[in-house]
Amino acid sequence: MDSENTPPSPTRLRVLAAARACFSRDGFHGASMKNICKASEISPGTLYHHFPSKEALVEAIIEEDQLRAFSRFAQDKPDSDLVETIVNNLLAVREEDRAQRALVVEIMAEGMRNPLVAEMLDRKHQAIMAMIESRLRQAQQQGAVAADLDLPATSSLLLSLTYGILADTATGSALSEAQRRRALSAMINGVLRPVG
Amino acid sequence: MDSENTPPSPTRLRVLAAARACFSRDGFHGASMKNICKASEISPGTLYHHFPSKEALVEAIIEEDQLRAFSRFAQDKPDSDLVETIVNNLLAVREEDRAQRALVVEIMAEGMRNPLVAEMLDRKHQAIMAMIESRLRQAQQQGAVAADLDLPATSSLLLSLTYGILADTATGSALSEAQRRRALSAMINGVLRPVG
Repeated sequence: MDSENTPPSPTRLRVLAAARACFSRDGFHGASMKNICKASEISPGTLYHHFPSKEALVEAIIEEDQLRAFSRFAQDKPDSDLVETIVNNLLAVREEDRAQRALVVEIMAEGMRNPLVAEMLDRKHQAIMAMIESRLRQAQQQGAVAADLDLPATSSLLLSLTYGILADTATGSALSEAQRRRALSAMINGVLRPVG
Repeated sequence: MDSENTPPSPTRLRVLAAARACFSRDGFHGASMKNICKASEISPGTLYHHFPSKEALVEAIIEEDQLRAFSRFAQDKPDSDLVETIVNNLLAVREEDRAQRALVVEIMAEGMRNPLVAEMLDRKHQAIMAMIESRLRQAQQQGAVAADLDLPATSSLLLSLTYGILADTATGSALSEAQRRRALSAMINGVLRPVG
């Protein structure tokens, strides 16, 4: 596996895009290294040089997803309303590309049975929860949320909620965005107990 | 596919148990009808008589899961505290058998790419949400929750939260049950806005 510090090579990026498409369409078990070679138009030797296994491909995909989650958070202005920011992020998750969401759920399913993938997901989740915690701690220091808010428990619950919304397969839901926003705001207000 | 009104035959139950094990271990695409035959020790002819396709197997598994969700709800006493009941149910989801949870997530992943499975999941979710809504309506009539609570939006959000908690792969989490209970109670209190 390449180090995180070397810039990703064009070949590597091409393989990852092809692997995403194959995993998303055929599932982790249905996709083969052979199909991923074909889809990315590279030789098996080159593929195995970059990624010795399907797990190595999944690890790189998880790292990409983590970077995306981080960059979404980085756009958040520190003085914006915390509840509103979280609600906006949760509503945005619903609007993400379906193939993208399908792949996240596929990797979660694989993480349920494959301890290697479970460990990778665990590292990603720890990193995202640490980021949420630091944002909540900041709000605590500004007096915007209660001083006794349990940051690890709250972050973990917010992460679960995010995954639950992401995995929602219903496309033709009858709920309006305004309805979702009101219910979500009530829920997030409840768990964050903002002050004032 | 058998009608819901005929009692399930022993063969059918045996095939479903084998299919659960195969899908859970190998994924929807990795599991084959041949392997399911072998695991349930029946002939291909008998398997195809009961279930003409993997999708038909998934449909029957989804129906079993729905019945399980319904029976869990049926145990709830109508005069019990609604927030506490929901929190208890959400905490119980975490304790469910991992193979069982893995299969639910696997079917969700398949639902993301397979419109047939997405429809089956949609029917299950509609049925569960209708049940949650009827419980919330009852609480509304008793004056236990606000009269203007948006029942469809709240039910949908509670279902998403349930799936997010169910799909949590982390086994060695450092959070205590008391911490989870407090954060969950705050969240559910927020969305339900119980009266009094």
